[in-house]
Amino acid sequence: MESKKPLILVSNDDGISAKGINELIKYLRPLGEIVVMAPDSPRSGNGCALTVTNPVHYQLVRQDVGLTIYKCSGTPTDCIKLARNRVLDRKPDLVVGGINHGDNSATSVHYSGTMGVVIEGCLNGIPSIGFSLCNHGVDANFEPTKEYIQKIVTTVLLKGLPPLVCLNVNFPDLQDLKGIKVCEQAKGHWHKEWEPCPRLHDKNYFWLTGEFVDMDLENDRSDSWALSHGYVAVTPTTVDLTAYKYIDELREALLN
Amino acid sequence: MESKKPLILVSNDDGISAKGINELIKYLRPLGEIVVMAPDSPRSGNGCALTVTNPVHYQLVRQDVGLTIYKCSGTPTDCIKLARNRVLDRKPDLVVGGINHGDNSATSVHYSGTMGVVIEGCLNGIPSIGFSLCNHGVDANFEPTKEYIQKIVTTVLLKGLPPLVCLNVNFPDLQDLKGIKVCEQAKGHWHKEWEPCPRLHDKNYFWLTGEFVDMDLENDRSDSWALSHGYVAVTPTTVDLTAYKYIDELREALLN
Repeated sequence: MESKKPLILVSNDDGISAKGINELIKYLRPLGEIVVMAPDSPRSGNGCALTVTNPVHYQLVRQDVGLTIYKCSGTPTDCIKLARNRVLDRKPDLVVGGINHGDNSATSVHYSGTMGVVIEGCLNGIPSIGFSLCNHGVDANFEPTKEYIQKIVTTVLLKGLPPLVCLNVNFPDLQDLKGIKVCEQAKGHWHKEWEPCPRLHDKNYFWLTGEFVDMDLENDRSDSWALSHGYVAVTPTTVDLTAYKYIDELREALLN
Repeated sequence: MESKKPLILVSNDDGISAKGINELIKYLRPLGEIVVMAPDSPRSGNGCALTVTNPVHYQLVRQDVGLTIYKCSGTPTDCIKLARNRVLDRKPDLVVGGINHGDNSATSVHYSGTMGVVIEGCLNGIPSIGFSLCNHGVDANFEPTKEYIQKIVTTVLLKGLPPLVCLNVNFPDLQDLKGIKVCEQAKGHWHKEWEPCPRLHDKNYFWLTGEFVDMDLENDRSDSWALSHGYVAVTPTTVDLTAYKYIDELREALLN
């Protein structure tokens, strides 16, 4: 009897041509049957956005033994929804996003299209992992991430993840990684977020930019601490946003 | 000595012309000084998306006593970032998103541009509340929400909210509301999400649609239960996505 290889659905937010996703595909191929549904161009900062004002289109790019690649006109979240509902004939065993060109630790989890992929997989009951490298360069060196990605994916394929929990994995941009740290999301906020780019006499045009103000620099449990100290930061991430601890106090405040 | 009125920053994802935000402005005016920075057209389903491939532009629409209205070419999240960094001369006392035309309870919190507004406020340490009505109609009746919105806003202005916690408030589409229930986010997922809209001979075009499969129908603590039973659902929502309960188990799985 043939034992089916695990089905791994892959997407990203840098688009189908990015080096990161193509490296990821290489690392994952020995571990399962790979189906890629990735945006046809960059969708950085898309978060969990959906496409609601246009139809979404997908197209086969390439088919090989154990690997099928599609590109899609939608957001990273659309990619997962479309693959799951209209392309795949069985539920994936794993959803993987990345490898992102750039850090998705700390509060960036909210804006990240890579984590949009992962949150969508998780909401559908599929173990899901996002991988990001702290280097925005188009030709970043992903090679040091390979053994970690294969280890984490193998572990999750074997043991699964709890309901409503996915993984946000971030790699420092180093040749020698110090190992894995299981982390919590660093607290902080962005500032200096807008750079003026006036058009003729209109001064109200701005480019989004910014610096992250890390309020958790001293907290050795945070993902930003792990990254700045050379560790691979693995942050278990929940899609249940309920602030359970505040329910009683809020009831008291609003109902009395 | 003049006592300053609270500064309330308002945005939405249905755009500046929607009835919901204009009703909200009316309800909030007695409670503070209102500054609106809202998208210039609908941005439903934008989640926490950012605009990174184009400059973002804003423009004054109208100024009145205690009310200033701007429109913005960006996403709901961009609106809050831009207002906070480039327009306001002090930190807002409150950020309010809505009133959304349509339900943002349960897992919709991830896709909602209204909650994108609220999450952005919360990440910046500002008490933040999203209001949504379970009616997508352009001419929905928001009147029954007025007294609840004023009560919730007054309470939050007085007592604040804990760090990293914001509120997701959803109203059933009823004339007679049964009161407030403090809730947790209902568990569930979407299905039947794509409707074919073939173009000529290409069958790979789809409109996003779908039905929510509520796995929490029997759970009287869930927001979807509250809504289907006539209550105003107030769900305290955290922007710290760390799955704290799973940290030890994950460490065990990955490091041994």
